[in-house]
Amino acid sequence: MLDVINLGEKLGRFHDLWSPKIIADLNDSHVKLVKVQGEFVWHSHANEDELFLVLAGRLVIEFRDGAVTLSPGEMVVIPKGVDHRPVAREEVHLMLVEPKAILHTGGVPDARTVTEWERI
Amino acid sequence: MLDVINLGEKLGRFHDLWSPKIIADLNDSHVKLVKVQGEFVWHSHANEDELFLVLAGRLVIEFRDGAVTLSPGEMVVIPKGVDHRPVAREEVHLMLVEPKAILHTGGVPDARTVTEWERI
Repeated sequence: MLDVINLGEKLGRFHDLWSPKIIADLNDSHVKLVKVQGEFVWHSHANEDELFLVLAGRLVIEFRDGAVTLSPGEMVVIPKGVDHRPVAREEVHLMLVEPKAILHTGGVPDARTVTEWERI
Repeated sequence: MLDVINLGEKLGRFHDLWSPKIIADLNDSHVKLVKVQGEFVWHSHANEDELFLVLAGRLVIEFRDGAVTLSPGEMVVIPKGVDHRPVAREEVHLMLVEPKAILHTGGVPDARTVTEWERI
Protein backbone atom coordinates (compact mmCIF):
# COMPACT_ATOMS: atom_id res chain seq x y z
CA MET A 1 0.00 0.00 0.00
CA LEU A 2 1.27 3.45 -0.80
CA ASP A 3 1.85 6.08 1.82
CA VAL A 4 -0.38 9.13 1.71
CA ILE A 5 1.78 12.24 2.10
CA ASN A 6 0.07 14.99 4.07
CA LEU A 7 1.86 18.25 3.28
CA GLY A 8 0.83 19.93 6.54
CA GLU A 9 2.00 17.01 8.63
CA LYS A 10 5.35 16.94 6.80
CA LEU A 11 5.77 20.70 7.25
CA GLY A 12 5.35 20.18 11.00
CA ARG A 13 8.43 17.95 11.07
CA PHE A 14 11.04 20.66 10.51
CA HIS A 15 11.69 24.30 11.26
CA ASP A 16 15.02 25.13 9.63
CA LEU A 17 15.00 27.61 6.77
CA TRP A 18 16.37 27.30 3.21
CA SER A 19 16.93 23.56 3.65
CA PRO A 20 14.64 21.56 1.35
CA LYS A 21 13.49 18.14 2.55
CA ILE A 22 12.67 15.30 0.18
CA ILE A 23 9.14 13.96 0.61
CA ALA A 24 8.88 11.77 -2.50
CA ASP A 25 10.68 10.38 -5.53
CA LEU A 26 8.99 11.09 -8.84
CA ASN A 27 10.77 9.63 -11.89
CA ASP A 28 14.08 11.54 -12.16
CA SER A 29 12.83 14.25 -9.81
CA HIS A 30 12.34 14.83 -6.13
CA VAL A 31 9.32 16.42 -4.53
CA LYS A 32 10.54 18.61 -1.68
CA LEU A 33 9.20 20.94 0.99
CA VAL A 34 11.09 23.98 2.18
CA LYS A 35 10.55 26.88 4.58
CA VAL A 36 12.17 30.18 3.67
CA GLN A 37 12.43 33.68 5.10
CA GLY A 38 14.71 36.51 4.01
CA GLU A 39 16.68 36.86 0.80
CA PHE A 40 18.37 33.95 -0.93
CA VAL A 41 21.38 34.14 -3.24
CA TRP A 42 21.07 34.98 -6.96
CA HIS A 43 21.51 31.77 -8.91
CA SER A 44 20.33 29.75 -11.89
CA HIS A 45 20.27 26.09 -12.83
CA ALA A 46 21.86 25.40 -16.21
CA ASN A 47 19.94 22.22 -16.97
CA GLU A 48 16.91 22.06 -14.71
CA ASP A 49 13.50 23.69 -14.60
CA GLU A 50 12.19 24.15 -11.05
CA LEU A 51 8.57 24.18 -9.88
CA PHE A 52 7.73 26.41 -6.90
CA LEU A 53 4.23 26.03 -5.41
CA VAL A 54 3.43 28.30 -2.46
CA LEU A 55 1.60 26.58 0.40
CA ALA A 56 1.74 29.39 2.98
CA GLY A 57 2.94 33.01 2.99
CA ARG A 58 3.83 35.27 0.09
CA LEU A 59 6.99 34.71 -1.92
CA VAL A 60 8.68 37.22 -4.18
CA ILE A 61 10.90 35.79 -6.90
CA GLU A 62 13.20 38.37 -8.39
CA PHE A 63 14.46 38.06 -11.95
CA ARG A 64 16.99 40.26 -13.71
CA ASP A 65 14.13 42.09 -15.44
CA GLY A 66 11.53 42.26 -12.68
CA ALA A 67 9.80 40.16 -10.06
CA VAL A 68 6.70 38.09 -9.42
CA THR A 69 4.81 37.60 -6.16
CA LEU A 70 3.24 34.24 -5.33
CA SER A 71 0.46 33.67 -2.81
CA PRO A 72 -0.77 30.30 -1.50
CA GLY A 73 -2.19 28.22 -4.35
CA GLU A 74 0.06 29.91 -6.88
CA MET A 75 3.05 28.40 -8.66
CA VAL A 76 5.70 29.20 -11.19
CA VAL A 77 8.13 27.12 -13.21
CA ILE A 78 11.57 28.71 -13.35
CA PRO A 79 13.05 27.63 -16.66
CA LYS A 80 16.60 26.32 -16.83
CA GLY A 81 19.20 29.05 -17.17
CA VAL A 82 17.10 31.87 -15.73
CA ASP A 83 18.73 33.89 -12.94
CA HIS A 84 16.44 34.20 -9.94
CA ARG A 85 16.45 35.11 -6.28
CA PRO A 86 13.64 34.12 -3.86
CA VAL A 87 12.80 36.79 -1.29
CA ALA A 88 10.39 36.16 1.60
CA ARG A 89 9.43 39.03 3.88
CA GLU A 90 7.61 36.54 6.10
CA GLU A 91 8.05 32.80 6.55
CA VAL A 92 6.94 31.03 3.39
CA HIS A 93 6.26 27.33 2.91
CA LEU A 94 6.88 25.88 -0.53
CA MET A 95 6.57 22.64 -2.43
CA LEU A 96 9.31 22.11 -5.01
CA VAL A 97 9.57 19.62 -7.85
CA GLU A 98 13.01 19.50 -9.41
CA PRO A 99 15.45 16.99 -10.91
CA LYS A 100 17.40 14.87 -8.45
CA ALA A 101 20.67 16.13 -9.94
CA ILE A 102 19.95 19.80 -9.18
CA LEU A 103 22.43 21.90 -7.20
CA HIS A 104 20.75 23.90 -4.44
CA THR A 105 22.29 27.26 -5.25
CA GLY A 106 23.04 26.43 -8.88
CA GLY A 107 26.79 26.23 -8.30
CA VAL A 108 26.95 29.58 -6.48
CA PRO A 109 28.63 28.88 -3.13
CA ASP A 110 26.61 30.12 -0.15
CA ALA A 111 26.56 29.35 3.57
CA ARG A 112 23.09 27.89 3.00
CA THR A 113 24.10 25.57 0.16
CA VAL A 114 22.76 22.08 0.86
CA THR A 115 24.66 19.25 -0.81
CA GLU A 116 22.82 16.30 0.70
CA TRP A 117 19.05 16.45 0.93
CA GLU A 118 17.38 15.23 4.08
CA ARG A 119 14.37 12.97 3.62
CA ILE A 120 11.37 13.34 5.91
CA MET B 1 8.83 37.87 -16.88
CA LEU B 2 7.35 34.54 -15.88
CA ASP B 3 3.66 33.92 -15.58
CA VAL B 4 2.30 33.20 -12.14
CA ILE B 5 -0.05 30.21 -12.35
CA ASN B 6 -2.99 30.48 -9.97
CA LEU B 7 -4.42 26.99 -9.51
CA GLY B 8 -7.90 28.22 -8.56
CA GLU B 9 -8.10 30.52 -11.57
CA LYS B 10 -6.99 27.70 -13.88
CA LEU B 11 -9.54 25.32 -12.35
CA GLY B 12 -12.25 27.86 -13.18
CA ARG B 13 -11.44 27.57 -16.89
CA PHE B 14 -12.85 24.09 -17.44
CA HIS B 15 -15.60 21.82 -16.22
CA ASP B 16 -15.17 18.56 -18.10
CA LEU B 17 -14.25 15.48 -16.09
CA TRP B 18 -11.34 13.01 -16.52
CA SER B 19 -9.66 15.30 -19.07
CA PRO B 20 -6.36 16.63 -17.70
CA LYS B 21 -5.26 20.09 -18.86
CA ILE B 22 -1.61 21.10 -19.12
CA ILE B 23 -0.74 24.18 -17.06
CA ALA B 24 3.05 24.06 -17.27
CA ASP B 25 6.08 22.33 -18.75
CA LEU B 26 8.59 21.08 -16.21
CA ASN B 27 11.66 19.40 -17.69
CA ASP B 28 10.39 16.16 -19.31
CA SER B 29 7.09 16.39 -17.43
CA HIS B 30 3.83 18.25 -17.60
CA VAL B 31 2.02 19.80 -14.69
CA LYS B 32 -1.71 19.22 -15.21
CA LEU B 33 -5.01 19.92 -13.53
CA VAL B 34 -7.96 17.56 -13.74
CA LYS B 35 -11.48 17.30 -12.34
CA VAL B 36 -12.81 13.82 -11.71
CA GLN B 37 -15.97 12.21 -10.41
CA GLY B 38 -16.98 8.56 -10.50
CA GLU B 39 -14.82 5.52 -11.16
CA PHE B 40 -11.98 5.50 -13.65
CA VAL B 41 -10.60 2.45 -15.45
CA TRP B 42 -8.02 0.13 -13.88
CA HIS B 43 -4.65 0.88 -15.46
CA SER B 44 -0.94 1.27 -14.86
CA HIS B 45 1.92 3.12 -16.53
CA ALA B 46 4.84 0.84 -17.37
CA ASN B 47 7.51 3.54 -17.31
CA GLU B 48 6.17 6.56 -15.47
CA ASP B 49 5.58 7.51 -11.84
CA GLU B 50 2.59 9.85 -11.38
CA LEU B 51 2.08 12.48 -8.71
CA PHE B 52 -1.51 13.13 -7.56
CA LEU B 53 -2.05 16.13 -5.26
CA VAL B 54 -5.63 16.70 -4.11
CA LEU B 55 -6.76 20.35 -4.20
CA ALA B 56 -10.47 19.85 -3.45
CA GLY B 57 -12.68 16.89 -2.54
CA ARG B 58 -11.72 13.43 -1.37
CA LEU B 59 -10.16 10.92 -3.75
CA VAL B 60 -9.95 7.19 -3.26
CA ILE B 61 -7.22 5.41 -5.19
CA GLU B 62 -7.75 1.68 -5.34
CA PHE B 63 -4.84 -0.73 -5.68
CA ARG B 64 -4.97 -4.47 -6.14
CA ASP B 65 -4.23 -4.95 -2.44
CA GLY B 66 -6.26 -2.11 -0.90
CA ALA B 67 -6.98 1.58 -1.22
CA VAL B 68 -5.93 4.99 0.07
CA THR B 69 -8.06 8.09 0.56
CA LEU B 70 -6.63 11.54 -0.13
CA SER B 71 -8.02 14.81 1.22
CA PRO B 72 -7.01 18.32 0.13
CA GLY B 73 -3.33 18.94 0.89
CA GLU B 74 -2.52 15.25 0.54
CA MET B 75 -0.60 13.58 -2.26
CA VAL B 76 0.68 10.24 -3.40
CA VAL B 77 3.19 9.11 -5.99
CA ILE B 78 1.97 6.10 -7.92
CA PRO B 79 5.08 4.18 -8.91
CA LYS B 80 5.50 2.92 -12.44
CA GLY B 81 3.91 -0.46 -13.04
CA VAL B 82 1.41 -0.29 -10.18
CA ASP B 83 -2.22 -1.01 -11.12
CA HIS B 84 -4.53 1.67 -9.80
CA ARG B 85 -8.04 3.04 -10.20
CA PRO B 86 -9.09 6.51 -9.02
CA VAL B 87 -12.59 6.66 -7.53
CA ALA B 88 -14.26 9.95 -6.60
CA ARG B 89 -17.64 9.86 -4.84
CA GLU B 90 -17.82 13.65 -5.19
CA GLU B 91 -16.12 16.01 -7.65
CA VAL B 92 -12.40 16.09 -6.92
CA HIS B 93 -9.82 18.57 -8.21
CA LEU B 94 -6.28 17.31 -8.66
CA MET B 95 -2.86 18.53 -9.66
CA LEU B 96 -0.81 15.95 -11.56
CA VAL B 97 2.88 15.88 -12.41
CA GLU B 98 3.77 13.18 -14.90
CA PRO B 99 6.11 12.60 -17.86
CA LYS B 100 5.06 14.14 -21.15
CA ALA B 101 5.15 10.71 -22.79
CA ILE B 102 2.55 9.18 -20.46
CA LEU B 103 -0.58 7.52 -21.83
CA HIS B 104 -3.74 8.66 -20.07
CA THR B 105 -5.18 5.22 -19.37
CA GLY B 106 -1.87 3.40 -19.54
CA GLY B 107 -2.71 1.72 -22.85
CA VAL B 108 -6.11 0.47 -21.64
CA PRO B 109 -8.66 1.74 -24.17
CA ASP B 110 -11.53 3.66 -22.59
CA ALA B 111 -14.11 6.14 -23.82
CA ARG B 112 -12.38 8.74 -21.66
CA THR B 113 -8.87 8.14 -23.02
CA VAL B 114 -7.28 11.47 -23.94
CA THR B 115 -4.55 11.30 -26.57
CA GLU B 116 -3.87 15.01 -26.99
CA TRP B 117 -3.69 17.16 -23.90
CA GLU B 118 -5.36 20.54 -23.92
CA ARG B 119 -3.31 23.44 -22.58
CA ILE B 120 -5.00 26.10 -20.48
